[in-house]
Amino acid sequence: MKNDTMTSMTTLSPQPYKGTRDWYPEDKAVQNYIFDTWKATMQSFGFCEYGAPLLEPLEVYAAKSGDELANEQTYAFTDRGGREVAIRPEMTPSISRMVAARRQELAYPARLFSIANFMRYERPQRGREREFWQLNADVFGADGVAAEAEILQLADVLMKAFGADETMYEIRVNSRELIEAMTRQYLGLDETRGKQLVRLIDRKNKLPADVFRASAREILGTDENEAKLEAIFAADSIETLPEGLAASDAAARIRELFAMLAALGISSTRFDVTLMRGLDYYTGTVFEVFDTDPQNNRSLFGGGRYDGLVGMFGAEPASAVGFAPGLTTTELFLRSHDLLPDLMDGVNIYVAAVGDMALETFQLAAKLRKEGLSVESDVSGRKFDKLIKTAEKKGAKEIVFVGANEVATGVYSAKNLATGEERRLEA
Amino acid sequence: MKNDTMTSMTTLSPQPYKGTRDWYPEDKAVQNYIFDTWKATMQSFGFCEYGAPLLEPLEVYAAKSGDELANEQTYAFTDRGGREVAIRPEMTPSISRMVAARRQELAYPARLFSIANFMRYERPQRGREREFWQLNADVFGADGVAAEAEILQLADVLMKAFGADETMYEIRVNSRELIEAMTRQYLGLDETRGKQLVRLIDRKNKLPADVFRASAREILGTDENEAKLEAIFAADSIETLPEGLAASDAAARIRELFAMLAALGISSTRFDVTLMRGLDYYTGTVFEVFDTDPQNNRSLFGGGRYDGLVGMFGAEPASAVGFAPGLTTTELFLRSHDLLPDLMDGVNIYVAAVGDMALETFQLAAKLRKEGLSVESDVSGRKFDKLIKTAEKKGAKEIVFVGANEVATGVYSAKNLATGEERRLEA
Repeated sequence: MKNDTMTSMTTLSPQPYKGTRDWYPEDKAVQNYIFDTWKATMQSFGFCEYGAPLLEPLEVYAAKSGDELANEQTYAFTDRGGREVAIRPEMTPSISRMVAARRQELAYPARLFSIANFMRYERPQRGREREFWQLNADVFGADGVAAEAEILQLADVLMKAFGADETMYEIRVNSRELIEAMTRQYLGLDETRGKQLVRLIDRKNKLPADVFRASAREILGTDENEAKLEAIFAADSIETLPEGLAASDAAARIRELFAMLAALGISSTRFDVTLMRGLDYYTGTVFEVFDTDPQNNRSLFGGGRYDGLVGMFGAEPASAVGFAPGLTTTELFLRSHDLLPDLMDGVNIYVAAVGDMALETFQLAAKLRKEGLSVESDVSGRKFDKLIKTAEKKGAKEIVFVGANEVATGVYSAKNLATGEERRLEA
Repeated sequence: MKNDTMTSMTTLSPQPYKGTRDWYPEDKAVQNYIFDTWKATMQSFGFCEYGAPLLEPLEVYAAKSGDELANEQTYAFTDRGGREVAIRPEMTPSISRMVAARRQELAYPARLFSIANFMRYERPQRGREREFWQLNADVFGADGVAAEAEILQLADVLMKAFGADETMYEIRVNSRELIEAMTRQYLGLDETRGKQLVRLIDRKNKLPADVFRASAREILGTDENEAKLEAIFAADSIETLPEGLAASDAAARIRELFAMLAALGISSTRFDVTLMRGLDYYTGTVFEVFDTDPQNNRSLFGGGRYDGLVGMFGAEPASAVGFAPGLTTTELFLRSHDLLPDLMDGVNIYVAAVGDMALETFQLAAKLRKEGLSVESDVSGRKFDKLIKTAEKKGAKEIVFVGANEVATGVYSAKNLATGEERRLEA
């Protein structure tokens, strides 16, 4: 396209699409730091990286009937061949499909992770973007409390890998089975009322106390049940659960889990009976990592044991434990605790031509690169001060000028842009 | 979602969406190897990594009027807010928009690269997928032949970074200015006929010789012009161009370019007067890298000097030189020349519980990870032979069993899974 065609047209907006970000080098460096830290940690636990397509058939998400994700938040459309598709709003259906397609060939427990982007049509706000990046970590085919303990250990290590300590975050843990035991056996609610209560408790912190109490009363029916619920909320550890609930199998399993976590020296986990985390998705332990900074008091990510959805794709079902930290919430956490290192890393040497020395500049640059250095060459022919300014702005460590004299003698001077020191360079 | 809800539903297909790939760990390892090699090379030349949104307003692509990309190949749709958008089919408009948005703040020449996925609605075939990955490398604001020489040097280094040598690939080089001089001054064609000839030459290798000759005759008009075109095709180097064309400014510039490439020791480049590479997009040097393997005789990637499209977004225009290698063509090249190293890299140690030793297994694994090792723990409680088989399948280097005796003594045995050798491990 030629310039004249262009300038005759309406000017287009230089802003990115609503709810998405442009990742300029300084932003991309933060993204890469977080991705690299995730990746190294996952690999140290023997997780293998995978990737999945950007699009999936819409029905994969619609299958989660009633889920506002498929109906209101997907970027769904019909492709040029008439297929209804969606830009992935999450990874679980894709990785479940991939496991289903190789259900017999894979080695179990299968430890898998990916770092990918997703899109959801939501109102953008601090910590929430329409295009967002997530680490997805899942273990397929590992049953029992031990697998849940290990995934919690991994979540804890993942936070520490960024230099965080236990004062900065807290991992709240509950169990879907315990929630079930609470609503059905302990409180004696039917399935509908049980689900209503779970939904209500899930929103407890967002509701005024009296609204919560009135709604709870309506669901619970009796004074006795109200008192029982109070007793549950009073439990700040697995040891102080009311007797009727403490005796359940679910409580025994979560006690086993906490005993294991203690033995592993993990002190960031805390039992939280009010943690609901999704309605129908999870089947066992659930957890959520919270930032303890009052200025950034948000959920960082969550996970737990869930139905791996593998059966949905015609394969033998396989349960999974996993979690999915987001890039943006992680970045906000690191910023709120001042944990981001200095990441902008310019080249080792900025080689600048003095006048018409392009070829000689490229030759020197090639030589220095062969020594393992990163080298940017500048053959713009600009003046010294302009070249130095550009090299500084780009974060280069040293600058070397290539002029007639240097080329003739083969002796160059490398000037440190931070200290001003010069060193002799022979080439 | 519960299992019973799932199984009552129609089974979904485990296949990926047409024209996309599932990246299982062994495929992802190849992808990462290529991405990492690209990234290291780009950084050694002082290029900074950026990222761009997945979606752009459709008009950004539609602005290239007449381009089949926008009209037939985009994944375009209307979002829930009524905006017409497209999944990016290429990076040039996005990075041009980003440069426009910070036109004054950026340091020039701005060296930028990204590794990202794109989607085009095309018929999938070998080497072409609907979702594809590309490296995009661009220098904004560097004029002159030298910038073009450096980008060709970079393309050459990028191939060598994978272990390729000059017998495996060839970089064919031409110039849009030379094409212009050829059609307008040398052959005396008007603009319409000039473009017709360019399009015809672009398809030369796909047409039967007689069809090409007849079409060319129609465009060229005279016997004299036919002879002139023959003389051009006979030129296999910049030195053997017919006199009338050799005297043009465009030929002088391309001679300067080749002199510089020779002085830089680059022997993979070859002048090719028939290389057309796009109609209106490029403005100076154009090039295309070809695989020389007759079994995989394809264009690997191309690039050149082009209008950076920055002006389209209301900022002062900035020209650019760049190129964009694709993941799939690179992978096919590496496979055709047997250049792919062994990439599957399992954990250092597979720590397996013998019976009910989950906690002790996790504790040993944590200890070993602190020593910098990658460790996978297996607390499935399966039998020895099953555990060994799984560890082997996963590519682990050593296996360590955690049984009552080992825990009691603190002495473990690490068995090399390739050689069978055992070594003592104290923990």
